[in-house]
Amino acid sequence: MRVLVNGVASQGVDVRDRGFQYGDGIFTTLRSVDGQPRLLAWHLSRLADGCARLGMRYPGGGLLSADLRALGDASGENVIKIQLTRGIGGRGYRPLTEGEPTRVVSRYPFPAFPKAYYHSGVSLTHCRTPLGINAALAGIKHTNRLEQVLGRAEWADEYQEGLMCDTEGFVVEGTMSNVFMVKSGTLETPLIDRCGVNGLMRRLILEVAQASGMAVRERRIRPNELASADELFLTNCVIGVWPVARLDSKTYGIGETTRMLSARADEWQRQEARSW
Amino acid sequence: MRVLVNGVASQGVDVRDRGFQYGDGIFTTLRSVDGQPRLLAWHLSRLADGCARLGMRYPGGGLLSADLRALGDASGENVIKIQLTRGIGGRGYRPLTEGEPTRVVSRYPFPAFPKAYYHSGVSLTHCRTPLGINAALAGIKHTNRLEQVLGRAEWADEYQEGLMCDTEGFVVEGTMSNVFMVKSGTLETPLIDRCGVNGLMRRLILEVAQASGMAVRERRIRPNELASADELFLTNCVIGVWPVARLDSKTYGIGETTRMLSARADEWQRQEARSW
Repeated sequence: MRVLVNGVASQGVDVRDRGFQYGDGIFTTLRSVDGQPRLLAWHLSRLADGCARLGMRYPGGGLLSADLRALGDASGENVIKIQLTRGIGGRGYRPLTEGEPTRVVSRYPFPAFPKAYYHSGVSLTHCRTPLGINAALAGIKHTNRLEQVLGRAEWADEYQEGLMCDTEGFVVEGTMSNVFMVKSGTLETPLIDRCGVNGLMRRLILEVAQASGMAVRERRIRPNELASADELFLTNCVIGVWPVARLDSKTYGIGETTRMLSARADEWQRQEARSW
Repeated sequence: MRVLVNGVASQGVDVRDRGFQYGDGIFTTLRSVDGQPRLLAWHLSRLADGCARLGMRYPGGGLLSADLRALGDASGENVIKIQLTRGIGGRGYRPLTEGEPTRVVSRYPFPAFPKAYYHSGVSLTHCRTPLGINAALAGIKHTNRLEQVLGRAEWADEYQEGLMCDTEGFVVEGTMSNVFMVKSGTLETPLIDRCGVNGLMRRLILEVAQASGMAVRERRIRPNELASADELFLTNCVIGVWPVARLDSKTYGIGETTRMLSARADEWQRQEARSW
């Protein structure tokens, strides 16, 4: 793993950093192919949005792009994580608006996901840990992730992902992914207006689905509605699209729509990379 | 500020530490008088509870007490903060149960609160930022504190504290304190079963009130009920007890019950310190 903290090679941050003290920050995780970060403009834009929502200064795409260049070249597939915190300062919880954010940019080898996850699908479970509802934080990929940690701690290796519901019982997302279902030709995914992460692969899938003429709905979805879905799949920027083969005891076929959307999202990213 | 990380003088933690990555940890803040940490046994017990709730290994009171001794002697009043994180390791959100927690123990000068806060009371406001409801995290003094950061960011110096309500509109606590009201001789404070922090000064106040023969109720409280309270006060282990003189436009007298409970809580702590 190679890490730059505020542009300088380092593995450490100050214990007083508000990211460490309060989880007072945001992050994003990119897939990089032969040195080209995929969906970079979207990732930077979401970081800027996250900073605005939390009242943090955004360091700017220029500085972050310079950090990415300073990471150096890497061949093949890698994962790049950009984490921004509110830095050091303020009194207790009170943030200083003029504070300098901390930038941590790191690159690590791409996880060796089994090919079967893509071709045969993955196994899902339902997590018991709920997601609290709070529109003030909904959508933001912030570093207050205890709910996801507790959700992920509910199983070991017997599943690839767990679905989390909000405290009212509606399905929101996986611990590390967004979730979609295909039902009678319509693509449906949970709203993320009250909790959950505004995933960029989620956004890309919604865009390519609409561009393909599919009906698309974001709405509140009950767990039992997933059982009658024709297809189910998970998304994030590192895994891409994982078809779901099983949710607890219910099994699903690997559907044509999932394959089509996954291929179009891939193609969209390859085309974007060519123009980088 | 003097800081020990895992018992060694240091100002830094690894960027891979789950405390920095996910806010995956807990903390407590103690008042120390002439080298004697007040309510230490309670603080250690709450840290052990927090670790158990989050499935983290508790490093043990022996090790933490050794850290406190290693901080060295300090005269007068100081603040000691103990932060425990799940340490480095795990895959993504998934925690390793056998992981070694990170211990950060730090001491800093006691804040110079104006005497008037204690004698004439403080000014409170209502925060717009809500607290999400999630029993899985309720009560734990964890390091997922973005809600408190956003709440505290709503005002500058015109108030000493802000009250936060849950997403159903019930009063829960201040951004950094618990809240009590006295009404017709009964002491009332919000339940912390769905969100909020299990404050130790809150617990001590409840104990001395019951020992004094007062009627005590923990219940759901609406903001408008505070307006008809006879007395209102705030607690945490650093501030002790702050009477509230004003909540937005409503004013309160500094009541006898507040003074009595504050004095008894002080006396309780002095007696405990003598037996340390």
